[in-house]
Amino acid sequence: MTITLPTPSSIASAHTLIKPYIHHTPLLTNRTLNTLASTPQTPESLKDTPYEGQEPAHPKIRFFFKCENYQRIGAFKARGAFHALLRLVEREGEEVVRARGVVTHSSGNHAQALALAASTLHIPAYIVMPRISTPSKIAGTQSYGAEVIFSGSTSTEREAVVAEVQARTNAILVPPYDDYDIICGQGTTGLEMDEQYRELVSAKPELSVHSHPDSDHSKRGHLDAVITPVGGGGLNGGVTTFFSDKETRVFGAEPSFEGADDCRRGLEAGERIEAVKSLTIADGLRTPVGVLNWAIISDPKKHSGVFAVTEEQIKAAMRLVLERMKVFVEPSAVVGLAVCLYNEEFRKLVEREAPEGWDVGVVFSGGNTTVEAIGKLFG
Amino acid sequence: MTITLPTPSSIASAHTLIKPYIHHTPLLTNRTLNTLASTPQTPESLKDTPYEGQEPAHPKIRFFFKCENYQRIGAFKARGAFHALLRLVEREGEEVVRARGVVTHSSGNHAQALALAASTLHIPAYIVMPRISTPSKIAGTQSYGAEVIFSGSTSTEREAVVAEVQARTNAILVPPYDDYDIICGQGTTGLEMDEQYRELVSAKPELSVHSHPDSDHSKRGHLDAVITPVGGGGLNGGVTTFFSDKETRVFGAEPSFEGADDCRRGLEAGERIEAVKSLTIADGLRTPVGVLNWAIISDPKKHSGVFAVTEEQIKAAMRLVLERMKVFVEPSAVVGLAVCLYNEEFRKLVEREAPEGWDVGVVFSGGNTTVEAIGKLFG
Repeated sequence: MTITLPTPSSIASAHTLIKPYIHHTPLLTNRTLNTLASTPQTPESLKDTPYEGQEPAHPKIRFFFKCENYQRIGAFKARGAFHALLRLVEREGEEVVRARGVVTHSSGNHAQALALAASTLHIPAYIVMPRISTPSKIAGTQSYGAEVIFSGSTSTEREAVVAEVQARTNAILVPPYDDYDIICGQGTTGLEMDEQYRELVSAKPELSVHSHPDSDHSKRGHLDAVITPVGGGGLNGGVTTFFSDKETRVFGAEPSFEGADDCRRGLEAGERIEAVKSLTIADGLRTPVGVLNWAIISDPKKHSGVFAVTEEQIKAAMRLVLERMKVFVEPSAVVGLAVCLYNEEFRKLVEREAPEGWDVGVVFSGGNTTVEAIGKLFG
Repeated sequence: MTITLPTPSSIASAHTLIKPYIHHTPLLTNRTLNTLASTPQTPESLKDTPYEGQEPAHPKIRFFFKCENYQRIGAFKARGAFHALLRLVEREGEEVVRARGVVTHSSGNHAQALALAASTLHIPAYIVMPRISTPSKIAGTQSYGAEVIFSGSTSTEREAVVAEVQARTNAILVPPYDDYDIICGQGTTGLEMDEQYRELVSAKPELSVHSHPDSDHSKRGHLDAVITPVGGGGLNGGVTTFFSDKETRVFGAEPSFEGADDCRRGLEAGERIEAVKSLTIADGLRTPVGVLNWAIISDPKKHSGVFAVTEEQIKAAMRLVLERMKVFVEPSAVVGLAVCLYNEEFRKLVEREAPEGWDVGVVFSGGNTTVEAIGKLFG
């Protein structure tokens, strides 16, 4: 099977299309986190790791946080959902799409994103959610006017209900991540980061590691690296595509708990891992990476690697973002930051490749959690 | 005793002085919270209140949130501390102040604010803290280079230790709120809100309740009301002073738990209440209002009233700010929002006075809490 992959210019077109519908989320900096990331870890924290007894890495890192927790519906998923529906309308015509409607199965941010995009564009939406979903998520999805249809929790059960809905309504399936248009939509996150970084650093050069008069001029004016969470790979695949013809390197971050680092393991094994069963606290990242997404991420000409972090490292990073940055994020959102702070392999890489240091763009993917969930994590 | 009170122009001078040292914090809007505030409360929620059985108020409110949780040290207190020290240096000369140092007693945000301002200006700082203060607050204060001296927890014990420090070092006392220069510093919050509101609404008129072509033109271009928390009254007194020659009305908000609404009760009784012993979750607001602050707030030509909210209402407002706005705040920060959402007396007032509605500036005073504390509140 030949597959067609998005290009940087398809991301730019997606941005033009969705811009009126999405928030232009802020790109924030934070001195405390820069200092923490640029301080070696303690020898104790490397105990029982392959780096035990080695001199801890001493990279120099300046962060630029893209806050998609402030995106509509509280997560980057709004980008892909609006883009998928706008393209559908372009291709099929408004009447056809409105007559047929759209369907998806999701218990998370994609459900609310598709419900919002559909209601905005006056398209009926059917969202298949597991019966056991939290009532607030069900209510959230319904509040955007979508029809919620319940199913069992396994993917077989969910897909069976989707098939039933399609048979009944002729609704068009909008997958959560393994889809050309969804990937293009999510990739617009990278496009905005690139623009916002240039503006910010040209106004305040001291924010960059490359501000010193003696620094390497070729490195100025672009992010050295970007890191995003990898769940199904829509966000990471889109961002990777956007930067694939630029000097910025793209990395992925995953939780290691119960094998949720399927993409990292797949890259190591040279083959996509098709199933994941993990209850990591980063609940947006429990899915295996999709086929199209894998084709992008596994291309070493485009992608620089995936790194994993433990549950404790995710919690530590989350604490810092909440307490120090005062920014409310969900656990999945901080895995990229956790890699920069605690993954010694990544930190050694930065130290080795960049004596001057790196300006690193980090995507905070979403903020849809509750105070009760925070209570459970830290109580 | 004659007391000299600050004027709007003393707030403007304070702003010029501290501007290089403080963050220009954002003024945020939020559609969800506007909608909630502009929806009548349910009849059930008014049960067991004086409003039981009455038609719930139906005010129209648009919020403009001044996010001092993003201020340096995570709270507005940085403004007053920098201003007090800069004025001290102006008056006494750099050498004198550096030779003598400054002292205060505080277990909260004022301690860290004074420590930061003193270290920035190369002035020694002695901070008296109760022995039982949380280790993170002690470490926070020490991390700015201040010398922490321990005391007992009562105000008598704390003041005795301050006197000892003064006898030993000749350090100058910088009080947390009952002080001319501190009030001027905190009042700069109001000045920025006024400026930012005008900019925002001239760029996006639809954010204001007064955007309709038929609306009352005299009400355009300024906030109708501002509400801030009242603890010692430095913030509220300063903001009240700034708006005292303008059309914007200023309100205060307090927790009602265990009598922490001393300012509201004092206004009702016509006399300042001098002592408070409350363990409200809004721990920044456990202090009685100061003498100077009272002189400002109790002047009906300057101030429009103080309203109180319950612990449950504070928690409900805090949940909304965290989960919906994705902004990390401490409980004290949200009492003003809680008044707008849940205090029926205030809501009736808005409905009665302003059929068109009000643009209301709300100060989020700080964000210094922990994930463990959130866990305790909501776990």
